[in-house]
Amino acid sequence: MMPDSPQMCLNLFLSVAGYHAGAWRRPDSRVEELTTLGRTAEIVRQAEDAKLDAVFIADLLGWHDNDFGKHPRMHPLEPITTLAALAGLTERIGLIGTVSTSYTEPYNLARYFASLDHLSGGRAGWNIVTSYGGGEQFGRDREPHDERYARATEYLEVVCALWDSWDADAVVNDRAGGTWARADRIHRIDHAGPYYQVAGPLNIPRSPQGRPVFAQAGSSEAGMAFGSTFGDVIFTAQPDLASARRFRETFRGRVRVRGRDPGSVKVLPGLMPIIGPSERAARELADEIADAIDYPSAVRALEWVLGDLGLADRDPDGPLPVELLKPPEEFDGGRTRYEILYRLAVHERYTIRELLRYRARAAGHHPVIGTAGQVAEEMIEWFDGGAADGFNLLVPHLPGGLDAITGELVPILRERGYFRAEYAGTTLREHLGLDVPGPAGRDDAGRPDRASSRSTFVKGI
Amino acid sequence: MMPDSPQMCLNLFLSVAGYHAGAWRRPDSRVEELTTLGRTAEIVRQAEDAKLDAVFIADLLGWHDNDFGKHPRMHPLEPITTLAALAGLTERIGLIGTVSTSYTEPYNLARYFASLDHLSGGRAGWNIVTSYGGGEQFGRDREPHDERYARATEYLEVVCALWDSWDADAVVNDRAGGTWARADRIHRIDHAGPYYQVAGPLNIPRSPQGRPVFAQAGSSEAGMAFGSTFGDVIFTAQPDLASARRFRETFRGRVRVRGRDPGSVKVLPGLMPIIGPSERAARELADEIADAIDYPSAVRALEWVLGDLGLADRDPDGPLPVELLKPPEEFDGGRTRYEILYRLAVHERYTIRELLRYRARAAGHHPVIGTAGQVAEEMIEWFDGGAADGFNLLVPHLPGGLDAITGELVPILRERGYFRAEYAGTTLREHLGLDVPGPAGRDDAGRPDRASSRSTFVKGI
Repeated sequence: MMPDSPQMCLNLFLSVAGYHAGAWRRPDSRVEELTTLGRTAEIVRQAEDAKLDAVFIADLLGWHDNDFGKHPRMHPLEPITTLAALAGLTERIGLIGTVSTSYTEPYNLARYFASLDHLSGGRAGWNIVTSYGGGEQFGRDREPHDERYARATEYLEVVCALWDSWDADAVVNDRAGGTWARADRIHRIDHAGPYYQVAGPLNIPRSPQGRPVFAQAGSSEAGMAFGSTFGDVIFTAQPDLASARRFRETFRGRVRVRGRDPGSVKVLPGLMPIIGPSERAARELADEIADAIDYPSAVRALEWVLGDLGLADRDPDGPLPVELLKPPEEFDGGRTRYEILYRLAVHERYTIRELLRYRARAAGHHPVIGTAGQVAEEMIEWFDGGAADGFNLLVPHLPGGLDAITGELVPILRERGYFRAEYAGTTLREHLGLDVPGPAGRDDAGRPDRASSRSTFVKGI
Repeated sequence: MMPDSPQMCLNLFLSVAGYHAGAWRRPDSRVEELTTLGRTAEIVRQAEDAKLDAVFIADLLGWHDNDFGKHPRMHPLEPITTLAALAGLTERIGLIGTVSTSYTEPYNLARYFASLDHLSGGRAGWNIVTSYGGGEQFGRDREPHDERYARATEYLEVVCALWDSWDADAVVNDRAGGTWARADRIHRIDHAGPYYQVAGPLNIPRSPQGRPVFAQAGSSEAGMAFGSTFGDVIFTAQPDLASARRFRETFRGRVRVRGRDPGSVKVLPGLMPIIGPSERAARELADEIADAIDYPSAVRALEWVLGDLGLADRDPDGPLPVELLKPPEEFDGGRTRYEILYRLAVHERYTIRELLRYRARAAGHHPVIGTAGQVAEEMIEWFDGGAADGFNLLVPHLPGGLDAITGELVPILRERGYFRAEYAGTTLREHLGLDVPGPAGRDDAGRPDRASSRSTFVKGI
């Protein structure tokens, strides 16, 4: 036990019926409880009992037939409401959810996360996405990639100013003097930019964490610039240790260029542990789940990412029509995962069926198949090798796959000194070892004085 | 006991530190816990133990110095997140929250309420407002009153279509066949109107209630037209039994004109019980709370409604400058309550201080001061007299004011046969005795067939 050694951050990607596309078909998947708070809370409390840093609810703004959009591998409800419901049913675990900067008004979003942070006692996290899809639900055309990030940058400036609009000492509860909150400690923001005009102040007192922890996953140039400016947690899909290390080093370099401490950003590659009592049993389990994939649905799911390639009419055991694939640099979406699929199809000559099975398993995230000890070894190798600050854990199937993580894998990591035995703090920021952002300093006119503030990261990217 | 006699609907207007503007200054107000989930949940569970129909969280989109906007009389957090957090900490009580049709995208709102309805097992209610304030937080000018309602009407059409976009039998969990949800039971909505373009379908399966219960409070012509078309619950501020009866009769007439059963709409006037062991003790309590009002704050609060009248510089015990008051028919906001203030100032010649104290008490809602028995008598008189289907209860101070309601007032109403001893159902719709809206019928092309549907109320106002 090395209690002072560096600790992994472990995040649970929330899936009720299993993240592997075939998992919900297992007899014990409890897919019937997909939309119930009871089953969701049970899963998250299990992660909390294992002392995981956070649970993360991903989101998409649309519905895609049997696909990633609302395949039962994804949590089916809206993230903010679900996390708020979990706030009262958990005590320590962080609560991270995806909300898009493209389709939610910043004043509303600032209120949702300030409320979630109050309700959870400082456990809110926001996974910031700019949404390549979804415009059809909002009467809007898809914005070009770089414009989405320009909008998102101004958006962050607005919401941070709103979260900073109440000084930490604004609420005084002065019964004798008749003052609940001091008006001179609450500030308009009067933001007027190209995308947003927001007067402020927020109508909610400053929350325990000041603002939510910021998670981000963009790996395009604009995405990396955004993430290195704002991100506290970086989710990423990496196929192997070498790629993951290159990504983390590149990313930390960008963070340094922004004048931030690279230690203040946690890079968490996705990892799906498929655990069995022996390596062979784990491989059999992996095959058994993969065999449960519905072929036509899996084809639609793959073509939702790769574009229409007419795969349904081709030989499943033949090659992909790689000449129809867009080069990765032209792909506007989850780019890292597209690159992985592209590489497997073009350079490793995967057959259609092989690629379907690959994607159905972990949607491009790194699978590790073996005993709990073997999985732990690989995680430690990545962590010690500078490839990861921890992991975003994708549970292949439930309940067995989660039981193996909390009952076998995490105890080994704990025993080896890589993971906490108890939460040391109460907020998500404390779990992750991040500083609490201070309230913005004020100039003589009571406006945020960015030069004097620990909130200085808002300086454009 | 008359178990089959008509039952009152009782709703709790949520306030953590007391709705009377002076209440938070009482030593036992626990105003320090204003933003905690723990205190909020404690209050709501007390209401649930008393078997109340629902709790309601009101909202405004802005912050007004020491005023109704974010005075501690109002719940300080965003309603949807707070109600979701309460969903897991309560089992039966309905959860109603205000969200504006003017500043929240319909696709987002449809997801929030579908999620809340799933998370709570069918207890979601939406108080529909069009927001006369708030535009400054969204870079938008205030829309004219009638245009806000035109927008809201189209908005309701969109969100109802989204909630109906999954048939009740869409999710089949067919493991053997590999089908989680049947694509032919999930429908695009392809809405294209003057205000909104939304493709649909929703990306959340149909929720237990089909859609949230609709509450509404507009009493302008456009507001009444809207409420009589869509409303299940009508909140209203009425000064006395005669006015309340006139309002309810007028309203029920409008409902009938829309082809709806007037029994399917519950009119709930606001009522603040100030209860003491004797009538005299209750009056002393009322005076004691009123004496705690901060005069300058109360002036600002009154002028936020009435407009700037320079009251701070006038004799508190002198008359209001009634010549500066806008006639009620020109007032764009909470009209009923404006009319009450107008009447008191103009016709009853209230002094400035008297009007301040009146507004600080219940913000225009009906106060009843006396023993629990006296309050119960008045509620029964209104109910039997056709003035109310129940009440929206405003708690003057906490904890004492809520203890008096749940421990004294409700037991008397129960004893007299006017209020349930146990919840009969599990959903808010069941508590209120309302039909569950059926899924929309479908025409041959799979589009909602409004003629055959129980969702037919969406037909323009």
